[in-house]
Amino acid sequence: MDALERIRELTVESRSKILLLVMDGLGGLPMTPGGPTELEAAHTPNMDALAARSICGMSTPIAPGIAPGSGPAHLALFGYDPLRYEIGRGVLEALGIGFDLQPQDIAARGNFCTLDPETGVITDRRAGRIPTEVSARLCAKLRAIQLPGVQVFVEPVKEYRFVLVLRGEGLEDGLTETDPQQVGKPPLPVYPTRPEAARTAELLNQWMAQARKLLADEYPANGCNLRGMAKDPGLPKMPDIYRMRCAAIATYPMYRGVAKLAGMDVLPTGETLEDEVETLKAHWSEYDFFFFHVKKTDSAGEDGDFQRKVEVIEHVDRVLPDILALGPDVVIITGDHATPALWKAHSWHELPVLLWSRYICPDDVTQFGERACMRGGLGHIRHVDLMPLAMACAGRLTKFGA
Amino acid sequence: MDALERIRELTVESRSKILLLVMDGLGGLPMTPGGPTELEAAHTPNMDALAARSICGMSTPIAPGIAPGSGPAHLALFGYDPLRYEIGRGVLEALGIGFDLQPQDIAARGNFCTLDPETGVITDRRAGRIPTEVSARLCAKLRAIQLPGVQVFVEPVKEYRFVLVLRGEGLEDGLTETDPQQVGKPPLPVYPTRPEAARTAELLNQWMAQARKLLADEYPANGCNLRGMAKDPGLPKMPDIYRMRCAAIATYPMYRGVAKLAGMDVLPTGETLEDEVETLKAHWSEYDFFFFHVKKTDSAGEDGDFQRKVEVIEHVDRVLPDILALGPDVVIITGDHATPALWKAHSWHELPVLLWSRYICPDDVTQFGERACMRGGLGHIRHVDLMPLAMACAGRLTKFGA
Repeated sequence: MDALERIRELTVESRSKILLLVMDGLGGLPMTPGGPTELEAAHTPNMDALAARSICGMSTPIAPGIAPGSGPAHLALFGYDPLRYEIGRGVLEALGIGFDLQPQDIAARGNFCTLDPETGVITDRRAGRIPTEVSARLCAKLRAIQLPGVQVFVEPVKEYRFVLVLRGEGLEDGLTETDPQQVGKPPLPVYPTRPEAARTAELLNQWMAQARKLLADEYPANGCNLRGMAKDPGLPKMPDIYRMRCAAIATYPMYRGVAKLAGMDVLPTGETLEDEVETLKAHWSEYDFFFFHVKKTDSAGEDGDFQRKVEVIEHVDRVLPDILALGPDVVIITGDHATPALWKAHSWHELPVLLWSRYICPDDVTQFGERACMRGGLGHIRHVDLMPLAMACAGRLTKFGA
Repeated sequence: MDALERIRELTVESRSKILLLVMDGLGGLPMTPGGPTELEAAHTPNMDALAARSICGMSTPIAPGIAPGSGPAHLALFGYDPLRYEIGRGVLEALGIGFDLQPQDIAARGNFCTLDPETGVITDRRAGRIPTEVSARLCAKLRAIQLPGVQVFVEPVKEYRFVLVLRGEGLEDGLTETDPQQVGKPPLPVYPTRPEAARTAELLNQWMAQARKLLADEYPANGCNLRGMAKDPGLPKMPDIYRMRCAAIATYPMYRGVAKLAGMDVLPTGETLEDEVETLKAHWSEYDFFFFHVKKTDSAGEDGDFQRKVEVIEHVDRVLPDILALGPDVVIITGDHATPALWKAHSWHELPVLLWSRYICPDDVTQFGERACMRGGLGHIRHVDLMPLAMACAGRLTKFGA
């Protein structure tokens, strides 16, 4: 039995509230040998005080050495085994631009590319990284393509990337990508990997043929590729598994989208951390579980901006008292993965986690940071274990066996 | 999906270099209550200085309580799940004497035994532990046996042990052993456990019948048994999985053999640690991954010689600066398993591991030893997790999921 299925069977109702505060890409590294990590460098008196009353540790998002994308890292935080439950790339790309994906839609990530006009082989898989405005104009052009029996959506993402969504009856995933992953070869036809997907493959091939004609007089983006064709994975929904009313507060479309796939109510909120806190306050009485997402730690890490990441963490620390004043019964603070400014990308490192509830045994950790949490009482755990721990502390899990 | 398969899918190329330094049987125990372990007693200023810049921990070779043989312990270090990938005993025995095993060969471990001349039942399963020289003479005698359509090799190992290898088309494993595992019973016929192995079983039974005749006038080794009949397990090869040029530097045939099965290039080297370091230097530019094996820590542990094991560790410490001067990007120092002098055999204990790279968060450990590493930032991991961590630190793994 899947661990999630076991948790579902043990779940009981309660009036307790759980807050999962995720600073995206929280984990860091010393920028210089002997120096502090971002979280260690940040002045975080409120988190430190909470850590002193909490049990802390280090958590691995997926498995040792594996740097996760945002999809699997968040699924793990929500209690889904990220190696079993996967969200396809096309779906994530659609969620990332806030596209209102329906359960039967097929979504693909599109990449504009440059083709040799004579031979049709790819000469640049990213079409010289055309600006997003150019991509937006090309997407508008591609919206002219019609396919029998389905609705077609084409939306720009960023630079050479776009999203293609087909909507209609009987669309199936199980489709190969057109991108040959190297220059000097032409885009490949889409093949079905399951017989049920044959018609969908044929529709995508028709779309590709028409796109090629429409783009023929463009340059450098005179072609395109489709990757990661996928449907909503039909995850078990958190309200069913955990018997909680679950809400997500996140400013970025991707995280709002993943939360929606997991069955959370995605609350309207503003752009700032203060907006998110106000949203939390406004809906506090309506939900049992809140996923509260902070994006800018990750963005700063991706930019290699150690100091900006420190400042985002300090900003979160300043709003923490307002959050705690709402009186959650269980608080988890962690990140989805590490994004060390030194590495400038998602990384594989374990990252600090703090678990507070009336029903934990506090350890000796008095600072929320990598080195301190390495010595924490939670030891080294996996993200997927956090929800069961939170549920247990919230009095929402009954005994296993007699 | 197997974790190794997942790693293979995430592997990208890089110019970074990984060094895996394995002191065989490194892990130890206090010889007297309150005393130090072998590694703690050793004066290791270079390892300690490296530990201070590294992340350390304790690693379990296979699973708690399981003392591994050299085969599974090394497979785990190389990233293979040792419970899934097994090297048959016959193959390990052949590798241990440096036999040049071919992929289609069937290798068996042979044991000379004493039979009751009247009844044919076994009276001593080890033939009174006859000296190796006697075994060598008997093996020469057994080389007279010919079988239809296959080449036959018989090689002495040590005392009553020998290796039998059949080479030819269509040989298959899936064979029962002849050893009834108790005295008072005769050697058993070889049975196939799969239909494809029927001919191989028949050939081995012919060989056993002829061996019995040839040994009839010998004593005490007037019979023999065959165990662990096996073929090269056809492991996925490290250069394919990890996209690295992989080299092994080891003085003992067994480790050279296991490295070869894993797809490494086994470099010619001499008998001493200094020879091994020279080999490393000479080939540094040609490979991305080096498995550097030190045997004598294990031999000293097996002999129960605490002080000699300390001295071998100190010897390794003295050559460490020369190794580090080559500029590896990632260094792992550990053992394949513990061989505490107190236990005089391979044991099940966790053993210290040190991971250095520019991209780790150093912990507070400043001494490379059991007690210090128990408090290390890596926590308690498994050998099989070391290669993914090394690959990640080396920038050789891409993100999982989007």
